[in-house]
Amino acid sequence: MKNLAMIMPEPGGPLQLVERLVPEPGPREAVMRVRATSMNYHDLVNLKGMLKFGPWPRVPMTDGSGEIVAVGAQVRSLAVGDRVNATFTPEWLSGRPTPAARRVVLGDTTDGCLQQYLALDERSFVKVPAHLTDDEAATIPCAGVTAWSSLAAGGIKPGDVVLAEGTGGVSLYTVQLAKAAGARVILTSSSDDKLAVGRSLGADHCVNYRTTPDWAAAVRELTNGRGADIVVDVGGASTLAGSVRAAAMGGTVAIMGVLGGSMSAELPLSTAMQANLHLVGITVGSVADHTDCNRAIEQAGFRPHISHRFAWTQMPEAMATMESQQHVGKIVVTVP
Amino acid sequence: MKNLAMIMPEPGGPLQLVERLVPEPGPREAVMRVRATSMNYHDLVNLKGMLKFGPWPRVPMTDGSGEIVAVGAQVRSLAVGDRVNATFTPEWLSGRPTPAARRVVLGDTTDGCLQQYLALDERSFVKVPAHLTDDEAATIPCAGVTAWSSLAAGGIKPGDVVLAEGTGGVSLYTVQLAKAAGARVILTSSSDDKLAVGRSLGADHCVNYRTTPDWAAAVRELTNGRGADIVVDVGGASTLAGSVRAAAMGGTVAIMGVLGGSMSAELPLSTAMQANLHLVGITVGSVADHTDCNRAIEQAGFRPHISHRFAWTQMPEAMATMESQQHVGKIVVTVP
Amino acid sequence: MKNLAMIMPEPGGPLQLVERLVPEPGPREAVMRVRATSMNYHDLVNLKGMLKFGPWPRVPMTDGSGEIVAVGAQVRSLAVGDRVNATFTPEWLSGRPTPAARRVVLGDTTDGCLQQYLALDERSFVKVPAHLTDDEAATIPCAGVTAWSSLAAGGIKPGDVVLAEGTGGVSLYTVQLAKAAGARVILTSSSDDKLAVGRSLGADHCVNYRTTPDWAAAVRELTNGRGADIVVDVGGASTLAGSVRAAAMGGTVAIMGVLGGSMSAELPLSTAMQANLHLVGITVGSVADHTDCNRAIEQAGFRPHISHRFAWTQMPEAMATMESQQHVGKIVVTVP
Amino acid sequence: MKNLAMIMPEPGGPLQLVERLVPEPGPREAVMRVRATSMNYHDLVNLKGMLKFGPWPRVPMTDGSGEIVAVGAQVRSLAVGDRVNATFTPEWLSGRPTPAARRVVLGDTTDGCLQQYLALDERSFVKVPAHLTDDEAATIPCAGVTAWSSLAAGGIKPGDVVLAEGTGGVSLYTVQLAKAAGARVILTSSSDDKLAVGRSLGADHCVNYRTTPDWAAAVRELTNGRGADIVVDVGGASTLAGSVRAAAMGGTVAIMGVLGGSMSAELPLSTAMQANLHLVGITVGSVADHTDCNRAIEQAGFRPHISHRFAWTQMPEAMATMESQQHVGKIVVTVP
Repeated sequence: MKNLAMIMPEPGGPLQLVERLVPEPGPREAVMRVRATSMNYHDLVNLKGMLKFGPWPRVPMTDGSGEIVAVGAQVRSLAVGDRVNATFTPEWLSGRPTPAARRVVLGDTTDGCLQQYLALDERSFVKVPAHLTDDEAATIPCAGVTAWSSLAAGGIKPGDVVLAEGTGGVSLYTVQLAKAAGARVILTSSSDDKLAVGRSLGADHCVNYRTTPDWAAAVRELTNGRGADIVVDVGGASTLAGSVRAAAMGGTVAIMGVLGGSMSAELPLSTAMQANLHLVGITVGSVADHTDCNRAIEQAGFRPHISHRFAWTQMPEAMATMESQQHVGKIVVTVP
Repeated sequence: MKNLAMIMPEPGGPLQLVERLVPEPGPREAVMRVRATSMNYHDLVNLKGMLKFGPWPRVPMTDGSGEIVAVGAQVRSLAVGDRVNATFTPEWLSGRPTPAARRVVLGDTTDGCLQQYLALDERSFVKVPAHLTDDEAATIPCAGVTAWSSLAAGGIKPGDVVLAEGTGGVSLYTVQLAKAAGARVILTSSSDDKLAVGRSLGADHCVNYRTTPDWAAAVRELTNGRGADIVVDVGGASTLAGSVRAAAMGGTVAIMGVLGGSMSAELPLSTAMQANLHLVGITVGSVADHTDCNRAIEQAGFRPHISHRFAWTQMPEAMATMESQQHVGKIVVTVP
Repeated sequence: MKNLAMIMPEPGGPLQLVERLVPEPGPREAVMRVRATSMNYHDLVNLKGMLKFGPWPRVPMTDGSGEIVAVGAQVRSLAVGDRVNATFTPEWLSGRPTPAARRVVLGDTTDGCLQQYLALDERSFVKVPAHLTDDEAATIPCAGVTAWSSLAAGGIKPGDVVLAEGTGGVSLYTVQLAKAAGARVILTSSSDDKLAVGRSLGADHCVNYRTTPDWAAAVRELTNGRGADIVVDVGGASTLAGSVRAAAMGGTVAIMGVLGGSMSAELPLSTAMQANLHLVGITVGSVADHTDCNRAIEQAGFRPHISHRFAWTQMPEAMATMESQQHVGKIVVTVP
Repeated sequence: MKNLAMIMPEPGGPLQLVERLVPEPGPREAVMRVRATSMNYHDLVNLKGMLKFGPWPRVPMTDGSGEIVAVGAQVRSLAVGDRVNATFTPEWLSGRPTPAARRVVLGDTTDGCLQQYLALDERSFVKVPAHLTDDEAATIPCAGVTAWSSLAAGGIKPGDVVLAEGTGGVSLYTVQLAKAAGARVILTSSSDDKLAVGRSLGADHCVNYRTTPDWAAAVRELTNGRGADIVVDVGGASTLAGSVRAAAMGGTVAIMGVLGGSMSAELPLSTAMQANLHLVGITVGSVADHTDCNRAIEQAGFRPHISHRFAWTQMPEAMATMESQQHVGKIVVTVP
């Protein structure tokens, strides 16, 4: 049986379609027939050849959804036909992150999801919310779980105010998951059109930072001076100072973003201290976090926003769409 | 200016209407014009004279809602006209409970809310959800905050399964707050009529324990064998064993209840250990917990269920209603 | 190469010495040459045939220490010569317990440590504190990690008061780990001789519950009425009521014990509620917990107390010693 | 009865000795006869007139120790003769910080401890460790509690590695409290003499950052590449980047410091994210935190390091000593 795969032969090299063997599951492994993947910023970085370490060639793309088509003899938690996600860091099963547990990242440090068949330990697959299509489910592993972990890091509870910055995948998942958790959500963007999408997904307040440059002040005003309990900062250098000023005393700023283009950012130290802020570095999440996230999505019943879909032969177009920030929410790439 | 008050002259003695002076606020105090109170099981215990300690006479009833009519010179957080709750333990402001912080309980260890005017430190009042009537707001301080603290003790998150036992005030608040937090809720009762009320408030599954005596098994079945993440056990001796069996591994059983009529209960120790349960004793909550609870209710926009309303001259009828368990949700007593 | 092993041919059947093949490590596995094991109450239950489920025959004994003698090709975290512990639940790597992660228990549900060679996934071994002998290290996996998890469940901090009940392995580890964490420790026993051992390990106060039957009251007196912040209850039915009465408001009672001989216990519900207690079921701990525990022991530099050592041909004597409670701390069984 | 007090007549104005009335305690207040205060960096800022807000005149100095000489009629927790600390933020009793609870700071926003008598609510005093002198006890409220809160924010446990930067009051308290909690401690300074003091207080490793400019790399080396579990960053702009690089995955960096002289700092965002760091803003702590801290010091039995003592007529010398960083640990100012 053939396993068609797209591979990167070398850093940044153009993708090549190859034919491989369908993997046989080991005793505790299962094999997923991949149906869709979705693109995240780190995939773009990878595809552009900026992750210099090997192995080469390598199948790119972290996110993946599909169904189980084979299981090893000792597999207990999965059955053929189960609809699943592969997980971002398949060896980080639960609990605190460690360098060892976070070493393997699908697509970045080992073969990823831009192929038809993927074998992993049974513990590395997570069932998808039943009401989602494969395309929709493929958007969860990186963006959805990052949003989930950010809100969990802030101990979200009903009545909290959550600030989501921008309208990419993490931000719109933040809107939807925060609403599912009973929070009030403020969303920022430079585009009223994109904000309209966010509003349709549940955002309570929208702030266009082009017309309202001091969006942090706007957040304080919308909260009677209190600030946001949880800020999901995806912008990094371009947003961190505002995020800190927008946060409530004792609040949490989830930091993950190098979208601002810089590896470091100016931190308003005195403000962060006086407000007893928690700034928490987020790197997606464990398999257990992903499981919780999917369970929450299934209970809430919402659907993620997909603005673009591409065939896997259109990877360059998908990359260009993300680079030019035309997308809102997620970009899906289907696997034939 | 007169302050009409109902007092208990001695343990269990019939209530008497007296006329007192309206309190002057101290420099950091505010005075609430009480509009409504609601009855809880501990109020019934108090009214029946089972709390033998003084002081006597004493104005009973812990719960209270109304508006601020006077503030001391140094008050900063309240203004005349603010609609507020008095808090259950007005000196437990925040954080961990201590015997000192929990010593004062309105109505039990000092004058409570069955009077027209009540003066407290400004920090002991909490603003009520704007959309609630006085009657509705009066149901929060004991029942609402207990439900809130129970769910918080279990670290509720979207997608969790919550088990609420019975249809009294705490249980129905558990239903509504758990739904606001994105949980799936299972509700038990001996009455299909009462379950119907719970269902109308959002309960996802209803189990009549008269027709389904092994309700714990039913909970496991409804959760594919996993059990409930959070169990709010109000029954104590009559329910604890079932609550433990119904809980998921690593789950939380909030214990508060002596409604079962006994001061102790049989704990299935081996089950509790094997499931790594957290059993957490709940005594309402701090002023900060109450503040969070009210904020969540306001954001969620729900209304508590009041099955009976009485004038304060009808306190015996209110007591009889609670004792015979005719009520569903809350019993309100208005203050003229 | 031969692997000598002691096997249980059937539930409770006498142990038999057999010769097996030394296991070859899988790609991510390592092989430990076992040097010592230690006996815990659950091992006794297992050896007496009370765990009816298979597989049969089975090598008993959970605890194990030794050194790595072979590693698979992909192993990164271990090298030949590393001195290690096998872990109690080798698949519960980190984080919250789940039924799947806790399914495998060495000696109980699969072959354990009463053999010369044991192969496990590299992630299931934990380096032992460098200053300990193999015999000493063999006492950690069940008793040491249980004590560690109990104290962690209570969020131990310097200045806390910890109550350890009895002088078995868990209790004496509780004494030593609690002292390492800066706590004040109260120890109970029916024997002044055993208490003397506990005192030599650091216990600050010793209470002989034969001469002081109301040991819970003694704990309150020793703490000016405040009670113990953390109680490690190993007795279950025989001690739980006292443990609850001995605990401070907001304190934690770690429950694990069925040493009292009953599967359930009377819980003073009203006291547990009024004191806002956390009762937490403990089942040893994850590999990450074990790692933390070993790191703490190494930093503290203490040695566990071993009262009896037996050769593996003396298993009946070891069992009799535990049953008659002659031991203090740990019973070690060496593997030739 | 006279209350001699040193007052600041205006921002930065020279201190003046005035004679005031000894305060009468309100019903729930107690009066402390101040015996000593100690100087912190924020006191220096205050004394130099950089806190422009009133009230004026104002008695400076936050820290204070002494004994209770009078109590109001309703006081329950204190008695005449009790040896106590005043607390940094006397209205932040417990739990999460809020702007309201943190508004009052002794010496900064209201009269502080450079006077003979101070009246506060009984809940705002904390008993001092019995083995400490008044001078020693006076060093706890700001520096000791800040160190305590920092370690608590990181969830310190035995075996953790703690990095203390510098040899001021917070840093040396960090050394002593971390050792009391069973941690391994790394200390940095530009002075071998100061490091020798730190070593005598328990620091396990000392790094002179003058001779070892890449102290963050040194920390990683000392921990086999793992990094420090908790970093107490007092330097802010001058140290934050190093602190982030020195921290272990999942570790905590407590941030409090503007000692580096800047209100903001460069945060290595990518490193902080990849390491899942928690950066937590610390502003001393609540009365409950202070209570816990004092209890821990009493149990550990250590004494803080005081390098300089001054009479209150020597305040300019005390200020000059701090400004020129001649001190190690704490500077005490006695109150006659």
